[in-house]
Amino acid sequence: MYDVEKIRADFPILSRQVNGKPLVYLDNGASAQKPQVVIDAITRAYADEYANVHRGLHFLSNLATEKYESVRGIVAKFLGVSDEDEIVFTSGATEGINLVSYGWAAPRLQAGDEIILSVAEHHANIVPWHFLRERQGVVLKWVDTDADGSLDPQKVIDAIGPKTKLIAITQCSNVLGTVVDVKTICHAARDRGVPVLVDGSQGAVHMPINIDDIGCDFYAITGHKLYGPSGSGAIYIRRDRMAEMRPFLGGGDMIKEVTRDQVIYNDPPMKFEAGTPGIVQTIGMGVALDYLMGIGMDKIAAHEADLATYAAQRLGGINWLNVQGTAPGKAAIFSFTMQGAAHAHDISTILDKKGVAVRAGHHCAGPLMDHLGVTATCRASFGMYNTRAEVDALIDALELAHDLLG
Amino acid sequence: MYDVEKIRADFPILSRQVNGKPLVYLDNGASAQKPQVVIDAITRAYADEYANVHRGLHFLSNLATEKYESVRGIVAKFLGVSDEDEIVFTSGATEGINLVSYGWAAPRLQAGDEIILSVAEHHANIVPWHFLRERQGVVLKWVDTDADGSLDPQKVIDAIGPKTKLIAITQCSNVLGTVVDVKTICHAARDRGVPVLVDGSQGAVHMPINIDDIGCDFYAITGHKLYGPSGSGAIYIRRDRMAEMRPFLGGGDMIKEVTRDQVIYNDPPMKFEAGTPGIVQTIGMGVALDYLMGIGMDKIAAHEADLATYAAQRLGGINWLNVQGTAPGKAAIFSFTMQGAAHAHDISTILDKKGVAVRAGHHCAGPLMDHLGVTATCRASFGMYNTRAEVDALIDALELAHDLLG
Repeated sequence: MYDVEKIRADFPILSRQVNGKPLVYLDNGASAQKPQVVIDAITRAYADEYANVHRGLHFLSNLATEKYESVRGIVAKFLGVSDEDEIVFTSGATEGINLVSYGWAAPRLQAGDEIILSVAEHHANIVPWHFLRERQGVVLKWVDTDADGSLDPQKVIDAIGPKTKLIAITQCSNVLGTVVDVKTICHAARDRGVPVLVDGSQGAVHMPINIDDIGCDFYAITGHKLYGPSGSGAIYIRRDRMAEMRPFLGGGDMIKEVTRDQVIYNDPPMKFEAGTPGIVQTIGMGVALDYLMGIGMDKIAAHEADLATYAAQRLGGINWLNVQGTAPGKAAIFSFTMQGAAHAHDISTILDKKGVAVRAGHHCAGPLMDHLGVTATCRASFGMYNTRAEVDALIDALELAHDLLG
Repeated sequence: MYDVEKIRADFPILSRQVNGKPLVYLDNGASAQKPQVVIDAITRAYADEYANVHRGLHFLSNLATEKYESVRGIVAKFLGVSDEDEIVFTSGATEGINLVSYGWAAPRLQAGDEIILSVAEHHANIVPWHFLRERQGVVLKWVDTDADGSLDPQKVIDAIGPKTKLIAITQCSNVLGTVVDVKTICHAARDRGVPVLVDGSQGAVHMPINIDDIGCDFYAITGHKLYGPSGSGAIYIRRDRMAEMRPFLGGGDMIKEVTRDQVIYNDPPMKFEAGTPGIVQTIGMGVALDYLMGIGMDKIAAHEADLATYAAQRLGGINWLNVQGTAPGKAAIFSFTMQGAAHAHDISTILDKKGVAVRAGHHCAGPLMDHLGVTATCRASFGMYNTRAEVDALIDALELAHDLLG
C-alpha cells in the first residue's frame, strides 16, 4: 500500500502555502522537493560531522570520508550496478555528460564521425555534442519522435552507420514524458560496436533502473531531481570505457603524483573527480536514494502511473487544451498549450495565483520545440508525493486561466 | 574588539568533542567549519523556499532565483569588484581554474607558449595547465620560493618572456602560509600584456580582497574554505577576458537558442554556467560571505595575524620541530616535520587522540614538497575562530607525540 499522505508529511515544503493557497507543486521535472531526512542529513553533516574528505587522518575527516564514500555503493545499488567503482560523482547530469564529451568523445572522434541523438533530448545532452560539431567537425544525426511523442527504438538503430561513434539518448523526455526503450537500443548498438550514453535525469526518477540489464556504457543522473540536494549527481561509466577516457577536470584527488614535469593520474573513478567534491550534497544524495529505495521504485512508478492515467484522462477531456505527447506508458509529465492563450507564460502565471506551480518555456529542449512547431509549452510534471486531488487542482486552475485568457 | 568566543559560539561543531577531548580544529586550510547562519539558510532554502531557478515563473522559482542571483552582488562586494556580471558561479576553485584552462587558454595557446607558475601552487592550479602541456605542447615555467618560503614577485616578473601567455599564481600558499604580492605581479604583467590568474582559495579567506586594486584577470575562490557550503564557489573574470572565452560546460541556461544545426550562446556570465546550478550551496555561500563582511575581513586578518605571531613563536621555540616557511606577514598556516618521527601521518594520528585536527600529507602541492625535500608534512591551519589556547593545545599534543615517537 502506497501511503501518499505519509510520504507528503516527509516533505516539509509541501505543507506551505503559496499566494494564500496550498502549494500544488507540479514542477518536479525541473527539480524535486526534499524529504526531511535529507535536510536533517545535511544539517548533521555541517553541524557535527564536517571536514574535508580523503586527505585527512583525523576523526572528523575519517567520518566525513566514510559517509561520503559509502554513497558510491548506494548509487550502484540504486542503478543496478555491481561494481561501485564504475560510479563517478558529479555536480549533476550536465557535468556527467560533459565529462563523457570531453573525456571520452573529444580525443577520439574525427571530423565526419557521427553522434546519434533523439530530437527529444534536453540541452544537457545536446550542447556538449554541438561543441564537438563546432570544434572538430563531428556530425549530429537526429532521430524524430512520432506523432504521439513515441520514439521508435528501431529508428535509432536504423540510424547507425559506419561513421556512428556514439548514441546519446534520454530514457524519458522531460517535455513529453515519453519513455524510451533504451535497452533495445543498447543491445543493438553493442552488436554494432557503438557505445550508448543514456541521460537518466528523468528516467531514474520515475522507474526502477537496472543498468546491468539495460547494457548502456554511460548513464547520468542528477541528485536534485531525485529528491536530493542541488549540486549533486553521478554517472555510471562502464569499466572498459573508463579505461579509454582521459581526465576532464584537473586538480587534487584525481592524481597520484604531480611534479613540475608530469602528472601520474589516479585510478578511476577518482581519476575523474577533481578537487574537494560536493561532500555534503553527495551525502545528502545518498540519503535521498536510500529513502527512495526504502519506499521502492516499483511502488513509486506504480503510483505515478496511476497519476499519469488520471491526468491524461482529465487533461485529454478538455477540448481547448492541446496536450503534447500521448505515448503509451509515458511518465506523468504533461506539456500543453491552450487555444486562445497567447503564451504559455500567461497560463503559468495564473496557475501560480492558485498555488499551482508549473513551468512554462522551452524546457531546455529547443529541437523538440521546433519539431512540435511550438515556441513554448506549459508543463505539469508529477512526482512521488503528488495526488489525484492535485490533478483536480490543476484542472480547476486551468479552467480559470481559460476563462481569463480564452 | 574581536570577540572570538562569541564567534566560536556561532559554529555548532566547535562545541563538540573528539576522542573525549574538546575539538581543536586546525584543518581550516583543507576546509572550514560553517556558522549556524549558513546551516539555517540551507535548511530554510530546502524546507520552505526551494525550486529550480531561472526558468520558472511560479512563486517558489522566483524566490529561489532572487536569492540565488543576489549572491552575485555579494561575491562582487566581497572581492571588491564593481561589475557583478564579472562573477561566474562555480562548484569551487578547481572548476573555476579549469574553466579558464578550457575556455580561455586551450583555444589560444600554441605549442611552445609558456605559462608561469610558482612552485608553491596547489594541484588545482597545476594540473589544468599540465593538461595543456600534455595535449598541446604548452611549456610550464616554474618560479621557486626562497629559503624562508617567500615568493619574490620580481622573480615572477623576470620570468616573463615573449612566449609567456599566462601567469597562474596563488595569493597564499596552502602549505607555507606565504602571502604573495600578486598586485605587483599583476601590474607588471599587464604592462607586458600578460594576463594573470590568481588562485584565491586561501588568500580570500585570510585577508580583505580588492580585485580592482590587485588588477588580475581571473580570481578564483572556493566557498567551502570561506565558511560556506561544500560544492560552492565563484571566479572573477575580467569582462574583456570573458569576451575572449569560448564556453566550457554545455547544457541548459548557458544558451539563448539551440537547434539541430547550431547553438547561440547566452551572454556572460550565464554563458559559463551550464545546467541547474548549485542553487542552495550558492545561497549558503552568500550568507557565509555576508557573515564574514559583517565581522570585517580586516578584523579577521588582524586576529589571525596575532595567532600567526603567537604560533610562530611557540612552534619556533621547539628544537625538534622543523617548521617550513617563515616569510614575513605569512598567514596562520604552519607545516612542519618532527625529528625522529618517521612520517607526518604518525604525528597527526597522535594529535587526533588529543582532539587536535591537523592534516598530514603532500597537501596537493607535489612540486613544493619536492622543492622542500620532503614527502609529507603535518599542517596546522588556523581560521577566524581559533584561539591562542588552541595554539597551546597543539603544542601540548606535539610534545606528547614527540615523547611517543621522538
